[in-house]
Amino acid sequence: MIIIMKPHAPDESIQKVAHLIEENGLTVHLSKGEEVTIIGVVGDKTRLAGKNLELIPGVDRIVPVTESYKLSNLKFHPSPSVIQVGSTEIGPNNLTIMAGPCAIESREQLLTIARGVKKAGATILRGGAYKPRTSPYSFQGLEEEGLKYMKEASEETGLMTICEVISAASLETAVNYVDMIQIGARNMQNFQLLREAGRAGLPVLLKRGLSATIEEWLNAAEYIMAEGNPNVVLCERGIRTYETSTRNTLDISAVPVLKSKTHLPVIVDPSHASGVRAYVAPLAKSAVACGADGLMIEVHNNPACALSDGPQSLTLEQFQELTQKLAPYCELEGRKFS
Amino acid sequence: MIIIMKPHAPDESIQKVAHLIEENGLTVHLSKGEEVTIIGVVGDKTRLAGKNLELIPGVDRIVPVTESYKLSNLKFHPSPSVIQVGSTEIGPNNLTIMAGPCAIESREQLLTIARGVKKAGATILRGGAYKPRTSPYSFQGLEEEGLKYMKEASEETGLMTICEVISAASLETAVNYVDMIQIGARNMQNFQLLREAGRAGLPVLLKRGLSATIEEWLNAAEYIMAEGNPNVVLCERGIRTYETSTRNTLDISAVPVLKSKTHLPVIVDPSHASGVRAYVAPLAKSAVACGADGLMIEVHNNPACALSDGPQSLTLEQFQELTQKLAPYCELEGRKFS
Amino acid sequence: MIIIMKPHAPDESIQKVAHLIEENGLTVHLSKGEEVTIIGVVGDKTRLAGKNLELIPGVDRIVPVTESYKLSNLKFHPSPSVIQVGSTEIGPNNLTIMAGPCAIESREQLLTIARGVKKAGATILRGGAYKPRTSPYSFQGLEEEGLKYMKEASEETGLMTICEVISAASLETAVNYVDMIQIGARNMQNFQLLREAGRAGLPVLLKRGLSATIEEWLNAAEYIMAEGNPNVVLCERGIRTYETSTRNTLDISAVPVLKSKTHLPVIVDPSHASGVRAYVAPLAKSAVACGADGLMIEVHNNPACALSDGPQSLTLEQFQELTQKLAPYCELEGRKFS
Amino acid sequence: MIIIMKPHAPDESIQKVAHLIEENGLTVHLSKGEEVTIIGVVGDKTRLAGKNLELIPGVDRIVPVTESYKLSNLKFHPSPSVIQVGSTEIGPNNLTIMAGPCAIESREQLLTIARGVKKAGATILRGGAYKPRTSPYSFQGLEEEGLKYMKEASEETGLMTICEVISAASLETAVNYVDMIQIGARNMQNFQLLREAGRAGLPVLLKRGLSATIEEWLNAAEYIMAEGNPNVVLCERGIRTYETSTRNTLDISAVPVLKSKTHLPVIVDPSHASGVRAYVAPLAKSAVACGADGLMIEVHNNPACALSDGPQSLTLEQFQELTQKLAPYCELEGRKFS
Repeated sequence: MIIIMKPHAPDESIQKVAHLIEENGLTVHLSKGEEVTIIGVVGDKTRLAGKNLELIPGVDRIVPVTESYKLSNLKFHPSPSVIQVGSTEIGPNNLTIMAGPCAIESREQLLTIARGVKKAGATILRGGAYKPRTSPYSFQGLEEEGLKYMKEASEETGLMTICEVISAASLETAVNYVDMIQIGARNMQNFQLLREAGRAGLPVLLKRGLSATIEEWLNAAEYIMAEGNPNVVLCERGIRTYETSTRNTLDISAVPVLKSKTHLPVIVDPSHASGVRAYVAPLAKSAVACGADGLMIEVHNNPACALSDGPQSLTLEQFQELTQKLAPYCELEGRKFS
Repeated sequence: MIIIMKPHAPDESIQKVAHLIEENGLTVHLSKGEEVTIIGVVGDKTRLAGKNLELIPGVDRIVPVTESYKLSNLKFHPSPSVIQVGSTEIGPNNLTIMAGPCAIESREQLLTIARGVKKAGATILRGGAYKPRTSPYSFQGLEEEGLKYMKEASEETGLMTICEVISAASLETAVNYVDMIQIGARNMQNFQLLREAGRAGLPVLLKRGLSATIEEWLNAAEYIMAEGNPNVVLCERGIRTYETSTRNTLDISAVPVLKSKTHLPVIVDPSHASGVRAYVAPLAKSAVACGADGLMIEVHNNPACALSDGPQSLTLEQFQELTQKLAPYCELEGRKFS
Repeated sequence: MIIIMKPHAPDESIQKVAHLIEENGLTVHLSKGEEVTIIGVVGDKTRLAGKNLELIPGVDRIVPVTESYKLSNLKFHPSPSVIQVGSTEIGPNNLTIMAGPCAIESREQLLTIARGVKKAGATILRGGAYKPRTSPYSFQGLEEEGLKYMKEASEETGLMTICEVISAASLETAVNYVDMIQIGARNMQNFQLLREAGRAGLPVLLKRGLSATIEEWLNAAEYIMAEGNPNVVLCERGIRTYETSTRNTLDISAVPVLKSKTHLPVIVDPSHASGVRAYVAPLAKSAVACGADGLMIEVHNNPACALSDGPQSLTLEQFQELTQKLAPYCELEGRKFS
Repeated sequence: MIIIMKPHAPDESIQKVAHLIEENGLTVHLSKGEEVTIIGVVGDKTRLAGKNLELIPGVDRIVPVTESYKLSNLKFHPSPSVIQVGSTEIGPNNLTIMAGPCAIESREQLLTIARGVKKAGATILRGGAYKPRTSPYSFQGLEEEGLKYMKEASEETGLMTICEVISAASLETAVNYVDMIQIGARNMQNFQLLREAGRAGLPVLLKRGLSATIEEWLNAAEYIMAEGNPNVVLCERGIRTYETSTRNTLDISAVPVLKSKTHLPVIVDPSHASGVRAYVAPLAKSAVACGADGLMIEVHNNPACALSDGPQSLTLEQFQELTQKLAPYCELEGRKFS
């Protein structure tokens, strides 16, 4: 931690800050410039929690030196993690494709899509049973009934499954049916839910919040990991910006940025990021070329009648075509396509 | 709902769209331009849910005409609502001041602050018992113990009380101790929690999400109201932008915008919006001058030792000075200061 | 300047950085933590331009300590500046109102508006002769002809005048007709134009760029001032965010932030910030309550036929009503209303 | 153009709007819903300029149907344009690489870099002679002297050249030395400069403004094209968002979005978008995979001593390595790598 004093701050202010630091068992390094004095703090800074040095007259600002996330930090775990999801793996050696409908609508719908995405190369089936919808008057999901179809689809096709949870209750139910839990963008800082997901015993896909910084996102992962669950995968799904020609703005740079900060795998969701079917394929290729460990893609057997997110869903044919296009990009990236 | 076709879309596309609309019991109004055809849809558009007209070839885009929020909509409830919170009222005739510490830290701390803010003119005591913190390693709140101090502070001072809830469990506990429930920015789209707050029987303060649009915010209010709870107050607390000289960017225009769209009261939180103590007073005056129905302000008896948000908290003396400054602005706005 | 090294950076990296700093005549203050070493640099940091310390292996990041703007910096000029515009003053003792049409459309239009805004209390007449329009097919302004009407309006009413310039040529023409030059948002980082405005001999109103940080804005002012022109006034006119219910988002906090960083006067333009006539009055009051030194407001004698920005323009009656409402707020702020 | 009336707007309002439209020679299509009436306007909407229908009581809002940009619009020019830059082409069949230093610093520096990037596969040499810098105290470029080195480098290596211009004067000088003109992000809405670039007789690279929407960007291109210059190439270079781990946020989706709206070629600048050398290679691959027609990359023979943007510049070795990596991605995209 570094404390930057205001220009020409009086000596007594500097002494006061230094005293407070030393009083708490830390070491002070003073650096007096012609105008500005800088105070370096050496030692365990958590001892200064609730000291609010910013409020001491003469202090200009505090610059943190170390990150607040530890378990997800690449500095303390320098090789990339491989996360086991049932019988499949997410990590640096392969490209994991999660595909399926935004919302589970019926047994037939889900089984048809499951068979199709399996054939095209997906290894994990996605499907929403609990839908967080902007308006309370929109379709909210089949809940447990949908989860049963997920289990059936998994048993028939051998696909692993993932479902978003939105509350303690839905989490408790979902763990009985699926192989991976998803925390959606709107709940990225629902810290209570993160903690519960950390204790649920399944790997967790943590989507980035609508306007979360990468640092906040890694701190959210830390909530899950601090409960003893190291199996977290991050999913970039677009951030909110002023540009309206796409639903969100895919922050593709987040992939290499995360690779430099964390050992957790990173996947990309081009469907939610763009909200437009025609942009899914170029963005999917882009994500692979950028180093993503996987993709999450919305696929529907009949997008024109989808109860949610139809306009951004690929048909089964389009999805098959996409996975074929992706294969050589995976190869270039040294990933096994599966 | 209006459907805008692509330039020179073939007649058969137009017919297909028109047919689908009529098939669902709605009426079509065709408007053929030289280049572009526009299709107006008359009738109950919810019948078109899951029809995804965007996907019919030749359709360029869909323009919604009516808002999806109904209960909070000024159009259907054209006079401003007055929300009763215990013995006090939030609405167009007065300026409600909610004040108190970010986090409840001890019985003494809370009682000292409660007495001070009461004396200075606040009518509602705020205090966090469940703190949503970016890092899991930060102080997370006293939970039920803190709520007991809130009740005691209320009984002693006559102040009404408000506390943030972050889960079904904290909500269930909080309703036994406080007069108003707060849903924080990070949970604005925690739809499960919104529904539970709608059924909890207490008025709800709904803070704007970090990057929520005004429309999303009103839809979030709709979740609460749709459960039968009409007592919702909105709180603008700054939005996320690229500017870093304040913690968030106070969207002061949200006040008049909301006044033109909803009958619900609107208050402003200049403490969280700016994150800097010195900016709280000018922003508070600004909010009153703009038509806000109230303010939420962080006050601490000893900000230098506050466990959370010390740098933006006013001292009791500063808070007293602020309320004195605000009084004539209230008068100009025709509000009773209380 | 502070250099933060990566955790456990090798000693030779630290030595390399220290050597480079000392070699350039600066002093090094080393602060070795358990994990991280921090290097404080004392002396004139411009000597390190083009040294790119970030690229030395082991360096994590550089934290600047002092601002790059000097002439506009409150630290070096601690009392607020008063800017003389013809016979009127912009500064801490009064509230300056600039009003007039977005675009000058005709002699009659301008004279009618000038008389009206004068009567209502404005001291500076605004009017666009060179319009920067998003589309090349929109009305682009009357150019010099418009400026002649400005001069005539000034002579008749005694109002001072301001006009936006968009190029060296328009600047050269405008200085012959008006009392103050405006640099618009789209040209805030047109550094060539800033320099020319700095040499033009008239006071300059510098609008904030659409997505400029406050620091970039003050650096833009520095370009003007570095040419020998200290007469710069800043104008907050809304920034670009994701929210679409207003044209831009008025960053009202910019007023107190600027007051803490610069001695230059700050005015607010609620017309461009909101883009909606009904929001102009509440935002104008808000700006005064927040400490603004003035307002810029679009007024038109017949907004329904305005060639530019009609929907956000006040009628002359609405403007008169607004200035009457503003008067008591000015008084509360200790400003002479004029 | 569609006019949406307020719910239950009185008939006389509707008649007033309809009358105004017809009076101007356009046709009205009325669509009366149960709540809301919609008015479609057929005909040349420029006749309604300055009519401000929004201001007629009862009007809720106006929805434009057609884009304001015409010459750049894919609808009117449905096949992708190929832009000739000296002896090289930018378009759908190849991947054009523009590379070179941020700022030209000396003859030796530029010639060394030119030789290196030529060898590695670049076809256009970039180099800044006029630098728009945030602070007036930073290095501002060698101006005409730098352009002379560009010409010499071009003659020696056979590379085409591109240089940013920042004013009428710099444009006038630059056309004598280089093959392509660049309009930088900060000048994207310097409409005067756009017009002058449109008349200068050279192809123009138009960078996206820091917070420009895609629609504003295409309207800026329209300014150039409306002067008779069809040779415009667009360059995505990152937009301003709240995320600070990269200098800007590369809006990679802009590539497919532009491909669906315009026939102009689109290139990507990963150096400015990220501001971090380590992210340049993954983002460059990403851009190719997404359909970009080219890349602009900052390369320096000695980044540690670069006078501008050193931290994001590749060394000549790194650049060579990058072009080798890119080659198979180009092939997958069906582009000739050159």
